[in-house]
Amino acid sequence: MDNCIFCKIAAGIIPSTTVYETEDLRVIADIAPANLGHLLILPKEHAADFTQLSEEKAEKVMKAAHKIVKAMKKGLKPDGINVLQNNGTAAGQTVMHYHMHIIPRYENDNVNVNWTPMEPGMDAVAQAAQATKAALEEE
Amino acid sequence: MDNCIFCKIAAGIIPSTTVYETEDLRVIADIAPANLGHLLILPKEHAADFTQLSEEKAEKVMKAAHKIVKAMKKGLKPDGINVLQNNGTAAGQTVMHYHMHIIPRYENDNVNVNWTPMEPGMDAVAQAAQATKAALEEE
Repeated sequence: MDNCIFCKIAAGIIPSTTVYETEDLRVIADIAPANLGHLLILPKEHAADFTQLSEEKAEKVMKAAHKIVKAMKKGLKPDGINVLQNNGTAAGQTVMHYHMHIIPRYENDNVNVNWTPMEPGMDAVAQAAQATKAALEEE
Repeated sequence: MDNCIFCKIAAGIIPSTTVYETEDLRVIADIAPANLGHLLILPKEHAADFTQLSEEKAEKVMKAAHKIVKAMKKGLKPDGINVLQNNGTAAGQTVMHYHMHIIPRYENDNVNVNWTPMEPGMDAVAQAAQATKAALEEE
């Protein structure tokens, strides 16, 4: 897409610190990282979010993520790793080109990936799950 | 694994609200959700984290995630969706059986998936990325 910065980075038109590249995707260093070593997996084909990404490209992203997580563990020896992919501004997505974050984590670091668990009870849990189940069954 | 609660849930030995199931995985409602509708993808074969999951099972998890995210968007109509997978207690993993969270998000909800971006400069960013790149190239 002409005005998409991640399309340009993925295509190599805008330079990046590239850690890994295939025909379908590029893995780059996030220049405003949560922690040093934070990487992004960018599919080369534009898709705004996970719902727009093809199943084929999604599987390629996951294959790359698997390689990257293992290499990050070996190379950086972090205390943990988050694999995170945000869809929509309400979920924290800031660039509207699908990207998966691979974030090295350290004890007492500055990253917030947490929530206060709700205690809605089993009926409410089951009812909310049913909305997604029904949509799956309509496919 | 005998004492793993997610192995028992994935196998159907402990009951759950199941939204989707294949030979390789089960998708269940999180009973302590971040938001109502929060789902977990559990591979049936035990793997403590992403580094221990096989590439084949990882691709199957991603294929299921893709279906679930599209169905959740259609069924629940949330403002956004987080796809999150934590590796290690420092990253927020609480059950040591690989699981992927699919979390519906709403404007001004109670979920924290954020960080204050560091401004480490390009040299530090490139150097940290190099640790993972070097480990990848050793494979």
